[in-house]
Amino acid sequence: MTRAWDEGLQARLSSYRETTLAGLLSAVPDREPQPYLYAPLSAHLSRIGKSIRPALCMATCKAFGGDPALASKSATAIEMLHNAFLVHDDVEDESELRRGLPTMHAEHGVPLAVNAGDMLNALSIRLLRDNLPTLGPELTWRVFDEFDHMMQESLEGQAMELGWVRDNRCDLTDRDYLQMVLKKTCWYSFIHPCRIGALIATRDGVALDRFNRFGYFLGTAFQIQDDLLNLTGDEKRYGKEIAGDLVEGKRTLMLIHALRHAGEREAQRLRRFLEGSRSQRSASEARWVFHLMRSLGSLDYARTVSKQFAGATLYEFAQAFGGVPDSDEKAFVHQIIRYMVTRDV
Amino acid sequence: MTRAWDEGLQARLSSYRETTLAGLLSAVPDREPQPYLYAPLSAHLSRIGKSIRPALCMATCKAFGGDPALASKSATAIEMLHNAFLVHDDVEDESELRRGLPTMHAEHGVPLAVNAGDMLNALSIRLLRDNLPTLGPELTWRVFDEFDHMMQESLEGQAMELGWVRDNRCDLTDRDYLQMVLKKTCWYSFIHPCRIGALIATRDGVALDRFNRFGYFLGTAFQIQDDLLNLTGDEKRYGKEIAGDLVEGKRTLMLIHALRHAGEREAQRLRRFLEGSRSQRSASEARWVFHLMRSLGSLDYARTVSKQFAGATLYEFAQAFGGVPDSDEKAFVHQIIRYMVTRDV
Repeated sequence: MTRAWDEGLQARLSSYRETTLAGLLSAVPDREPQPYLYAPLSAHLSRIGKSIRPALCMATCKAFGGDPALASKSATAIEMLHNAFLVHDDVEDESELRRGLPTMHAEHGVPLAVNAGDMLNALSIRLLRDNLPTLGPELTWRVFDEFDHMMQESLEGQAMELGWVRDNRCDLTDRDYLQMVLKKTCWYSFIHPCRIGALIATRDGVALDRFNRFGYFLGTAFQIQDDLLNLTGDEKRYGKEIAGDLVEGKRTLMLIHALRHAGEREAQRLRRFLEGSRSQRSASEARWVFHLMRSLGSLDYARTVSKQFAGATLYEFAQAFGGVPDSDEKAFVHQIIRYMVTRDV
Repeated sequence: MTRAWDEGLQARLSSYRETTLAGLLSAVPDREPQPYLYAPLSAHLSRIGKSIRPALCMATCKAFGGDPALASKSATAIEMLHNAFLVHDDVEDESELRRGLPTMHAEHGVPLAVNAGDMLNALSIRLLRDNLPTLGPELTWRVFDEFDHMMQESLEGQAMELGWVRDNRCDLTDRDYLQMVLKKTCWYSFIHPCRIGALIATRDGVALDRFNRFGYFLGTAFQIQDDLLNLTGDEKRYGKEIAGDLVEGKRTLMLIHALRHAGEREAQRLRRFLEGSRSQRSASEARWVFHLMRSLGSLDYARTVSKQFAGATLYEFAQAFGGVPDSDEKAFVHQIIRYMVTRDV
């Protein structure tokens, strides 16, 4: 990756992030109760990450010939919903750290955090309603339908992941994992941002399913990469607890691989580690699991699968964006792919 | 209350409940993941209570000359949202019992319950979208706006109540309590069901604020009554843990009264009881608080205030529904008021 290439990407990402951040913060009501609701929300939103999702939405809108300003409410709504998910996910996973800082519930307690997540969700829906004056009723409803599907898929995927942990499922296949990731991550993070961008640009004039495989491959490459970073990353740069997934008992591709390939005694010890509650899973035993995975080739396996999905994404990019003329935004989406699947932070 | 009067009310309530229950259950997607999401949702919804909120919405629609079938999607959406609130409230309050049965998180764990509540919320929004073919775009958006306001008020009220407990606020006034109840309970349980019913009936043809005072008075009488039942009711009939509010540290009108009127030593002991965590509040100490409240006249005070609000509700009913001709549905709404404020279950 050359420095100039990286700088161009970062500049464009920053610009989309600025638009999104302004939209998020101005969507937070300026009224009471501040201390128990709106102040924590504003603080939480002011530390959003790179906001890839809204960037993808606005860039796709532009690439398909639309005015990205028309997509900015919807893009902001996607980021708002993403943050609603994050706040509840952190409660569900009992995660203490997010973006290097205490999670909402670590700072304000579980009750206020659950309620705050509900408000982020309500605010994301309100942003969609704000599309009405600029997009008109028909297109506003179409965006709404995309959101409806996005929420359903994401919550189903989340239910699968949480249910597998709760029931200590040790019989899962790669196929199960991929279906869960499609639902939990790909739809709302990659497929729908592109669909909504193109929907608005063309006023519902192109077949949106063109983005489904593209977003599925990209999202899966991204999620496996994210799971790997959770195991091997640097806490300070990654911003979450390292190996938190192991302690949470998350069914990652690596864990499923290890369960499949471990010898009898190791598999037994691994299942014992998984069947306890989160607090029973010690850091030293998690380290043992990590070494087991490494020795079984589970990490290398996941890296390979992630790379395969990344490669397929480049092919699917040509299908999804092939019909539109070259532009800075089209190039930007292409850069995002490379960035997402080669990132080490 | 005569038996015939009661039977008429119950029959009509049952009929509205049947419509609502059918609407709720058919809104739950018939697909995977069943065990971790949809089966628990269907089980939860199949034991809804009297469903006063949708009944109020459909009856108001009819009383204002509309076809209650046109309001049934919105009424069902209100009950769906109510259930989303209940599932998250129970997590936030750590309540173990609801309608005499284990709460969602007591049965399925906190992670799946938080996620399930999110899905109930998403399904309530989807039901609003389903208004489009029957109500048309304009009216559908108007109902949507009513929902938007309803969610905001409810989540703000909930934030206040939770924040007061977390920060062990002992300086609250009756005015604080009433503002919290208006937000947490009155808007979504009473004001908006009536507003939405009349909105649909008249196609946005009457001033909806006529219901605001009516629903505020009714909701407050109801909430104080509910708080009293929590302290003095019969667990089997009430369906929740008796005196659960005390153990949760909830700021009820009785507690605020007791904090205001207790002598120095008693006030100190009461504040000590409140400042611990939920698990530190013993049943025996909660009993002491209950006796303190009784001896300070806090229960009688709350009963009196509730009755005053109930009386004011009857006056406001005449204002809100005064302009419409007498009908069975108008009589039914009037009966509901008497039922809500005289119930002992």
